[in-house]
Amino acid sequence: MTDTVFRSEFQVRDYECDLQGIVNNAVYQNYLEHARHEFLHSRGLDFAELTALGVIIVVIRAELDYKGALRPTDKFSVSVTAKPLGRLKLVFEQEIRRLADNELMLEAKIVAVSLRDGKRPYFPEELKKLMS
Amino acid sequence: MTDTVFRSEFQVRDYECDLQGIVNNAVYQNYLEHARHEFLHSRGLDFAELTALGVIIVVIRAELDYKGALRPTDKFSVSVTAKPLGRLKLVFEQEIRRLADNELMLEAKIVAVSLRDGKRPYFPEELKKLMS
Amino acid sequence: MTDTVFRSEFQVRDYECDLQGIVNNAVYQNYLEHARHEFLHSRGLDFAELTALGVIIVVIRAELDYKGALRPTDKFSVSVTAKPLGRLKLVFEQEIRRLADNELMLEAKIVAVSLRDGKRPYFPEELKKLMS
Amino acid sequence: MTDTVFRSEFQVRDYECDLQGIVNNAVYQNYLEHARHEFLHSRGLDFAELTALGVIIVVIRAELDYKGALRPTDKFSVSVTAKPLGRLKLVFEQEIRRLADNELMLEAKIVAVSLRDGKRPYFPEELKKLMS
Repeated sequence: MTDTVFRSEFQVRDYECDLQGIVNNAVYQNYLEHARHEFLHSRGLDFAELTALGVIIVVIRAELDYKGALRPTDKFSVSVTAKPLGRLKLVFEQEIRRLADNELMLEAKIVAVSLRDGKRPYFPEELKKLMS
Repeated sequence: MTDTVFRSEFQVRDYECDLQGIVNNAVYQNYLEHARHEFLHSRGLDFAELTALGVIIVVIRAELDYKGALRPTDKFSVSVTAKPLGRLKLVFEQEIRRLADNELMLEAKIVAVSLRDGKRPYFPEELKKLMS
Repeated sequence: MTDTVFRSEFQVRDYECDLQGIVNNAVYQNYLEHARHEFLHSRGLDFAELTALGVIIVVIRAELDYKGALRPTDKFSVSVTAKPLGRLKLVFEQEIRRLADNELMLEAKIVAVSLRDGKRPYFPEELKKLMS
Repeated sequence: MTDTVFRSEFQVRDYECDLQGIVNNAVYQNYLEHARHEFLHSRGLDFAELTALGVIIVVIRAELDYKGALRPTDKFSVSVTAKPLGRLKLVFEQEIRRLADNELMLEAKIVAVSLRDGKRPYFPEELKKLMS
């Protein structure tokens, strides 16, 4: 069902573009991260608060397929869906689409895990809200 | 008249915060720049296009007064007004205010100049639109 | 032969750390990119010049395995090797290791392609220098 | 005496450049901050540790005079000197010079203050080391 997909809208800011005149590769990870944190909010979770509570969520793998280049002033959406991966991991599937023509700009799979005491992986009760 | 002041709204993104848990000082310049470029758009001017046309606008001085610290998820507005400074320069006066309580977070004065052939200062016809 | 591996050394800057107190995920892509561009230099190629000449090299896929977290003041090396992938693509294999204990922090595979006129993929003569 | 001036050396990284092909204005504040933190280290102080100990040093004013533009691959030095300003404030005077020709690229005055409990200004004993 498409209505279970979380979507956040952004617009390219000129300082995010590099000397090729397009959004720098690393910046897409900023967009993806911000959309995931917005997704957490939509489920009543706050990344900064979780961090302060000692729930340290870290990315362990990122797969990014760059399909097209965003340019100054482009508007775009970033989608997020979350699924469990094994007993301990979470995988976020994300897409970045340019709003003007719905063209796919980037497809990403981000695997995350939570660390107890900054070390041992576990699955915090709080994150179950992301699966519903 | 306050209605001649251009305002752009933003929300803090977690990746903009540093290890103090607040927005990093340098990031405010990103906010200020983006608001200025939005202001240009509101007057029919596009920074990337101007650059491509050889109208190189550069900042020559920035005065930033940090009054308070933006934190994760804070919403805020960035205002812009432009005035001529002498015959060749432009000064942008900008304020960043937290939306929740209208508290002033930063006050800035940004002096810019345009360079012909990347060197000699001049006042491009195009920028007159910013003064009206 | 390990001596054919290009290596560049860096030190974490505090502003690269986020509110978890560790280097933000997106920043590793900055490190990887900078090491690739240094690698180009070591072979007599300059990314900005190539761009100006119309040789547009773009990343089409990035696979990043985050193994450990870099922290303020950590020194680290970023390695680069380049191999052809099919007739048109280049794959860069990169590792980030903390200098203090040679611990692997990140492993990455970056696939790039060159675009003629910003569109059609081709393999520019210049990039053959990367394979030797 | 010039030998009491702390200096740190950097090289422009391509991702720090924007669509004008020069280092983005905000990035200079990153350089300045990193050089100040290196300066703290040279006096036995660590910014991240101070933060963890509750010594919150914040910038309250930045004056930046942009004199020239750094470009891809430029090497440059960032200098730092610190002086007390009144009883509670510190002022850092900083210069960024291109190494190739010692040309002044940026001159900055950064005023900082320490906050006890994140609120009341005070002058922490630790920072006296910066004045010697």
